[in-house]
Amino acid sequence: MTAANEARTILERLGAGGPIWSSDGLEVRSPIDGSTAGRLAETADLEPVVARAVEAFHAWRRVPAPRRGELVRLFGDELRAAKDDLARLVTLEAGKIVSEGLGEVQEMIDVCDFAVGLSRQLYGLTLPSERPGHHMRETWQPLGPVLVISAFNFPVAVWAWNACLALVCGDPVIWKPSEKTPLTALATQAVFQRALARFGDAPEGLSQVVVGGRDAGEALAADPRIPLVSATGSTRMGRAVAQTVAGRLGRSLLELGGNNAMIVAPSADLEMAVRAVAFSAVGTCGQRCTSLRRLLVHESVADALVARLKAAYESLPIGDPREDGVLVGPLIDAAAAEAFEASLARAAEQGGEVVTGGGRLDRDGIYIRPAIVRMPAQTEVVMHETFAPILYVLTWSDFDQAVQMQNAVPQGLSSCVFTDSVREAEQFLSAWGSDCGIANVNIGPSGAEIGGAFGGEKDTGGGRESGSDAWKAYMRRQTQTVNFSRDLPLAQGVRFEV
Amino acid sequence: MTAANEARTILERLGAGGPIWSSDGLEVRSPIDGSTAGRLAETADLEPVVARAVEAFHAWRRVPAPRRGELVRLFGDELRAAKDDLARLVTLEAGKIVSEGLGEVQEMIDVCDFAVGLSRQLYGLTLPSERPGHHMRETWQPLGPVLVISAFNFPVAVWAWNACLALVCGDPVIWKPSEKTPLTALATQAVFQRALARFGDAPEGLSQVVVGGRDAGEALAADPRIPLVSATGSTRMGRAVAQTVAGRLGRSLLELGGNNAMIVAPSADLEMAVRAVAFSAVGTCGQRCTSLRRLLVHESVADALVARLKAAYESLPIGDPREDGVLVGPLIDAAAAEAFEASLARAAEQGGEVVTGGGRLDRDGIYIRPAIVRMPAQTEVVMHETFAPILYVLTWSDFDQAVQMQNAVPQGLSSCVFTDSVREAEQFLSAWGSDCGIANVNIGPSGAEIGGAFGGEKDTGGGRESGSDAWKAYMRRQTQTVNFSRDLPLAQGVRFEV
Amino acid sequence: MTAANEARTILERLGAGGPIWSSDGLEVRSPIDGSTAGRLAETADLEPVVARAVEAFHAWRRVPAPRRGELVRLFGDELRAAKDDLARLVTLEAGKIVSEGLGEVQEMIDVCDFAVGLSRQLYGLTLPSERPGHHMRETWQPLGPVLVISAFNFPVAVWAWNACLALVCGDPVIWKPSEKTPLTALATQAVFQRALARFGDAPEGLSQVVVGGRDAGEALAADPRIPLVSATGSTRMGRAVAQTVAGRLGRSLLELGGNNAMIVAPSADLEMAVRAVAFSAVGTCGQRCTSLRRLLVHESVADALVARLKAAYESLPIGDPREDGVLVGPLIDAAAAEAFEASLARAAEQGGEVVTGGGRLDRDGIYIRPAIVRMPAQTEVVMHETFAPILYVLTWSDFDQAVQMQNAVPQGLSSCVFTDSVREAEQFLSAWGSDCGIANVNIGPSGAEIGGAFGGEKDTGGGRESGSDAWKAYMRRQTQTVNFSRDLPLAQGVRFEV
Amino acid sequence: MTAANEARTILERLGAGGPIWSSDGLEVRSPIDGSTAGRLAETADLEPVVARAVEAFHAWRRVPAPRRGELVRLFGDELRAAKDDLARLVTLEAGKIVSEGLGEVQEMIDVCDFAVGLSRQLYGLTLPSERPGHHMRETWQPLGPVLVISAFNFPVAVWAWNACLALVCGDPVIWKPSEKTPLTALATQAVFQRALARFGDAPEGLSQVVVGGRDAGEALAADPRIPLVSATGSTRMGRAVAQTVAGRLGRSLLELGGNNAMIVAPSADLEMAVRAVAFSAVGTCGQRCTSLRRLLVHESVADALVARLKAAYESLPIGDPREDGVLVGPLIDAAAAEAFEASLARAAEQGGEVVTGGGRLDRDGIYIRPAIVRMPAQTEVVMHETFAPILYVLTWSDFDQAVQMQNAVPQGLSSCVFTDSVREAEQFLSAWGSDCGIANVNIGPSGAEIGGAFGGEKDTGGGRESGSDAWKAYMRRQTQTVNFSRDLPLAQGVRFEV
Repeated sequence: MTAANEARTILERLGAGGPIWSSDGLEVRSPIDGSTAGRLAETADLEPVVARAVEAFHAWRRVPAPRRGELVRLFGDELRAAKDDLARLVTLEAGKIVSEGLGEVQEMIDVCDFAVGLSRQLYGLTLPSERPGHHMRETWQPLGPVLVISAFNFPVAVWAWNACLALVCGDPVIWKPSEKTPLTALATQAVFQRALARFGDAPEGLSQVVVGGRDAGEALAADPRIPLVSATGSTRMGRAVAQTVAGRLGRSLLELGGNNAMIVAPSADLEMAVRAVAFSAVGTCGQRCTSLRRLLVHESVADALVARLKAAYESLPIGDPREDGVLVGPLIDAAAAEAFEASLARAAEQGGEVVTGGGRLDRDGIYIRPAIVRMPAQTEVVMHETFAPILYVLTWSDFDQAVQMQNAVPQGLSSCVFTDSVREAEQFLSAWGSDCGIANVNIGPSGAEIGGAFGGEKDTGGGRESGSDAWKAYMRRQTQTVNFSRDLPLAQGVRFEV
Repeated sequence: MTAANEARTILERLGAGGPIWSSDGLEVRSPIDGSTAGRLAETADLEPVVARAVEAFHAWRRVPAPRRGELVRLFGDELRAAKDDLARLVTLEAGKIVSEGLGEVQEMIDVCDFAVGLSRQLYGLTLPSERPGHHMRETWQPLGPVLVISAFNFPVAVWAWNACLALVCGDPVIWKPSEKTPLTALATQAVFQRALARFGDAPEGLSQVVVGGRDAGEALAADPRIPLVSATGSTRMGRAVAQTVAGRLGRSLLELGGNNAMIVAPSADLEMAVRAVAFSAVGTCGQRCTSLRRLLVHESVADALVARLKAAYESLPIGDPREDGVLVGPLIDAAAAEAFEASLARAAEQGGEVVTGGGRLDRDGIYIRPAIVRMPAQTEVVMHETFAPILYVLTWSDFDQAVQMQNAVPQGLSSCVFTDSVREAEQFLSAWGSDCGIANVNIGPSGAEIGGAFGGEKDTGGGRESGSDAWKAYMRRQTQTVNFSRDLPLAQGVRFEV
Repeated sequence: MTAANEARTILERLGAGGPIWSSDGLEVRSPIDGSTAGRLAETADLEPVVARAVEAFHAWRRVPAPRRGELVRLFGDELRAAKDDLARLVTLEAGKIVSEGLGEVQEMIDVCDFAVGLSRQLYGLTLPSERPGHHMRETWQPLGPVLVISAFNFPVAVWAWNACLALVCGDPVIWKPSEKTPLTALATQAVFQRALARFGDAPEGLSQVVVGGRDAGEALAADPRIPLVSATGSTRMGRAVAQTVAGRLGRSLLELGGNNAMIVAPSADLEMAVRAVAFSAVGTCGQRCTSLRRLLVHESVADALVARLKAAYESLPIGDPREDGVLVGPLIDAAAAEAFEASLARAAEQGGEVVTGGGRLDRDGIYIRPAIVRMPAQTEVVMHETFAPILYVLTWSDFDQAVQMQNAVPQGLSSCVFTDSVREAEQFLSAWGSDCGIANVNIGPSGAEIGGAFGGEKDTGGGRESGSDAWKAYMRRQTQTVNFSRDLPLAQGVRFEV
Repeated sequence: MTAANEARTILERLGAGGPIWSSDGLEVRSPIDGSTAGRLAETADLEPVVARAVEAFHAWRRVPAPRRGELVRLFGDELRAAKDDLARLVTLEAGKIVSEGLGEVQEMIDVCDFAVGLSRQLYGLTLPSERPGHHMRETWQPLGPVLVISAFNFPVAVWAWNACLALVCGDPVIWKPSEKTPLTALATQAVFQRALARFGDAPEGLSQVVVGGRDAGEALAADPRIPLVSATGSTRMGRAVAQTVAGRLGRSLLELGGNNAMIVAPSADLEMAVRAVAFSAVGTCGQRCTSLRRLLVHESVADALVARLKAAYESLPIGDPREDGVLVGPLIDAAAAEAFEASLARAAEQGGEVVTGGGRLDRDGIYIRPAIVRMPAQTEVVMHETFAPILYVLTWSDFDQAVQMQNAVPQGLSSCVFTDSVREAEQFLSAWGSDCGIANVNIGPSGAEIGGAFGGEKDTGGGRESGSDAWKAYMRRQTQTVNFSRDLPLAQGVRFEV
């Protein structure tokens, strides 16, 4: 059975089969072997989708938040039950290795648990008024329908970050998944339906999937009935969404490109650094927004580290991600491989020396050899995010310089330092340290926990999802003052007596 | 002495005189008597302004926040010392009555005190990691130069909301004040200079004023070195700023138009309601973003309330805002009076009946009679914000209907209900109540305290300033994870062993 | 089968039977029919119990909090599975009606969900240092073994409030349940063992039950290895615990007596008030710490309300709490009935007039008729908490007076007002309103949600459990400052140069 | 002029002279030269003091918190104006060097600024109810009169930590200062009176000083009208206060003894360590609760460090703390010197070897030579806090062992590590690291900033003062639920239909 057919079979087992297929819709393909599973009908009319979401909102915002949390708890239970199937679909459709597929579903489960806890929190404030006989409070209210535009590389987890929070916050969700991974989206909806069935009395239209391409995303982003658009993808896409949404004074939550670096200091534990580099530069075949792309090594340890990395890279098992032991699966499509090769060529032109990797494997699906390239400087190609496993290595002699190099790119998602020096680690985490949304010490840039806020600065778009108070993006804040006295004093002592 | 010349004299006394005047710059005018004080040189070159701000940022972000707070504390002290002068300038340049001018400076002082307290808080989080031997924290870091675009009607307070927080957060400020009120801006800078002199070692360029028109604002808003643009003004202006800033993936904080309503229920204290209406509909000559524009009265009390309001309106002292007892000063300029008259005419066409007011006074400066208009429905003119004292009165019979009427306009800034019913008050404050950023009970829509977050939803732009955690807009959030173990576990239990 | 034997059977089904019985231990009795199920062996030696808890602490504090949360999540799952059995045991041993027994287990489940959410929060702070090159943070660390002393009337929920938070916070729990309800405690432990088995690698001794009387509680409370003692029960007991623990500078969390009032204002919805009174004065046969004991009614509605209450009381189905429709089950024991009768007699001596109720039913078990007594003033008997269903009714004419009456008792747990007036409701919730830890509007005093902090002031002991930041009681706070500069500045600018 | 007479003169200049002196009261003495300034009348009758505080409370709790903050702001202003005088009194009465006296008053000023900020915060929560048509909030209410018992070594700052927060929180303060430092207390009150005069309409009795000894403190601690007793001093005193207050179910906030250690690791910056040791072991002549008492040095650097410390100690300028350059002033009294000598003798018996110091200087006042003693183990004398400058030096070979040594004493106030290793630093700050309330990296144990919570665990008493959410100790928490629906649902789905 081809990978695509296996995906189709799983989808049917999850109860999302049949009428979704069509003769002229979106082609469903597996990067594992290039097989196709047929075409999916695209959502023809977006108007009823948005209308249903608005109607659902009017009912759902009246449901007490702890009760909304119960739906998310049930969803978490159903995800646990469907974990293997859903993870397998992630592998089949996005090409991730088994452990990563399972990890992605685990992340959905984790965020369910977190959101359930939030459902009795969503804390606003009470605060003292300057006026006698008044009290003030700040309350967070449901916002309205949320549009989630997700990318192929985290086909389900990023939606779950958004959807679980949105649902607990009182907001219905419209999901426009990547054209490259619609099946995982439909499978997730099927799992969600199971939770809905157990829950009982939720309104129709709490969660909807729109199958379609860029046009569908753009049309939805322009709809004034959708107060929040949460979009993950390229900086180019994000910029377009941001402008569209700004033009109607809506709210955007953007998770765009990264160009993530690791600084390796002389005191670093090199053994740990090697392992961290391997996972973060090569995991998901270099197709994470948090993938490691730049390795900034102190000159005293650069040769040793590169040598160890070269050996590690050359022993990496590349192949079908379903197979035991494989660590590097396919790129998502041929365009990705072309970008990989083009960047390697540009790197060479710009003075780079390929240490290892490059080139495609001769088999079905798009398999390439992850590359390490030593660069003389952060040239144009280094400043640019190529969504493939190329690791640029550069050296530094002074820690201030290393931090400057880290910050010199347009993107600002993730960053890390390997060091055992308190001074270096804390400088890296200081106001004049890393300018990224994520900064790690002795951990690679990739693989965040759901308890922290996830997202980045600059061209990464500024959005934050998942933990901390990221939920506030899904609500509107209301400052409330109640006068229970018989007087009408004005703030700041203003007097105005008619 | 003309009002404009009085303003010029005060400015000189504050130490901001001399070389700022020019033969062909921005004309400085007082709405009180239409007098002019000369022309101000416009800022010729914006490039060095931004460059200075960036340089100041690099120094200022390293200054400990409590020390930054000390500068703001000194500024508060200097504002207390200059309160009368600065308030007088507000009166002279914006036309506010004396008590409102003083209230506006008091608001600057209040926000200084608040910001000083924040300077030892700016709380991020520590949180537990799911990985053994790891700890996580979230730290808020300085963001960079902040552009503040302010409007004529709060010529200094809104800047202070932004600037005091920005300075404590580690960000230099560039201020583009309204073309109609440049002198208060220059005077505020002179007061700020006094604080700087006492402080001692602050970098150059922490606070800069740009004298200029819309072009200057647009050029600055487009500059990628300015991560945050905080703009107050019309929805039209805000939409343009939002798109410009979104196009470079910057951050906007928008405070745009309001169309604020008061719901009056049968149990309302009518005496209090009358006083609240008078202040909020007529104060600042109806030129607050939070001015009351729509009065939604239960049919059983509408006639009584309107009768009392008519009497109150007809006794309002209109005139030179410097004079004791005057409650209604001038409109800002002739265009405002034209808009006032045009809206009254449109209201009449749309079925409105003028209860009182309308028409200009025959004297220097632009003085009009605040108007009350009973409307049969929320017609086009009611949905639109006219920046002048027109109060549209409408009736309702059912509380749900009243809330729907309140929410039916495009803007979402401020709202209020007068009632003594717990059920009505709390419904108004619930998830299915007012959709505004501010919701008051037994208080008019106008006159917020600085401790709460200020701002609104929908066409109001979504920004929040001043209290609560509004300071977070002036910082960037960093999620930090430190591994102090000898292992390298991955989140979500992912395994990847090279 | 007697009620006690039914309890024994259920316990065995849950896997906690056999060797726990003994010929000379604690007698296990059901208040439903006075039947006994045998005697339970008392915990002979407390030393190994504490030692095991300390050892467990050293291991458990190193387990990441989100992983600790997973144990609590599994416990919640097991509680869902065992809900009916456990609820039945609550009925059999404490005499609650079926719905209340189920509600109590539901409360355990709710707090599990809440604690799971907390396991990724337990938020401390990051904050700015006044010294350059320093950062500050506040971290909450595990505290150590927690002793939970629980009362018969919430035989399992209160333990769960404590235990679920303690476990997530990193603390093992030692449970000394009431001598009157040991079986529910043992059953709960059996359910917890199931969760432990699924969890896998938790240390021994995370949760232990001590079967015994007051001596066991006192000995444990004096043990310096137990940093926190959380005790629920009478004010007399609490005072003793507080002194013992204070003598070793430990921490107490006390939930002691209440003497809870409802104020009924003229605008109150009397239909709702009647229902609220009935549930909160009569539910659990008046044996909740939050039971309504004082009804403070405006003189204009007192007669009408009392008449409706009299009718409601006289229709109350009293009897075996296992039976459908029964609302009033037995008192816990004969001593409780004696206290009930003695208080009624004292009330009569002090001018009270019994409106309805009083007297025992002639059947096995201790069943009495809930009483309503009109009192001329808050006499001695009214100031005192009798743990039985006596409702004292008093009248007032002025709202200030009503609030004073509410606050005039030594206890400070729960309170409420029925009114539709914003002014009255908000005054009641103001700094000069109710002095209790819980204050409700249009809700009886009884039946809190787990999301809020639960507990009271004055003789109620000051502790807070369950929601909000009650978890902080189970942790220790550490203020951490890291100097990553090369200088050693002192705070407050102190200079000390050797 | 003797030191005591200089103090008397300053006190008069501050306006607190005259009638306070008496022939048979508390003797006022300066440790600088042993001179006496006369006797102070002790507070004869405590009853009216408490009654006044209660009355003040009833008025003050109704004053809006931001307005209460204005009083504290004015107090900060007056402290700035009186800084030199008040600091000089600290020097004269407590014997601190000039810089430390100034630092102590600066700390008062800092906490004023912080408290002013809090006056618009005092944040409670709004949170979602599980019941439809309900809202929940948590509000922090004023608590009542607060008793502050302060110690001689921080004669004014610790009171200010308490009083500024208490006043902003709505609580009057009764101050029982140390018998050894009454003049600074009276001077502080005089400064506070200036603020009150400017403020205008505060109630009488907001802040009162009780002159007296231990009896006065005990009597006040037992008074049930004082809900909070905040006491700083010895563990013995604290234990007594804790039991007294617990017996009436009041609240204690205890800051008791410390036995603070510094761990020095091989990677430590020894130059910084030497300076940190000198300040923290010798500053305030070793009479801070955070003074360094135990130096735990890695065996590889112990000899080098001790040698440098020996040299530093032997060059310490000892003498009149008013003199420029002096770093070591007098002990507070002869009893302190005796304890110093007795501990040195016991240390010798227990195997200690005096490296330097010991012995008294031959001059008026009690001047001793700070001592360093190498100990073979943490013997009995090491486990005990001697309030004098004795530094015990011990060595370790393994970092886990160092942490265990740090934690092995009964006290738990402050702790620190000098290291540049991330692993060591973070382990020290972890759940299995330092067990103290304060844990520093590359900073001595002494000299906290006011933004963090100050206090410690175990025999240190568990209280927290100053920053973070320490203000909550001065308020009572109220969980508020408002039902604005027409239904009366019960939590946890309980059903109870009469």
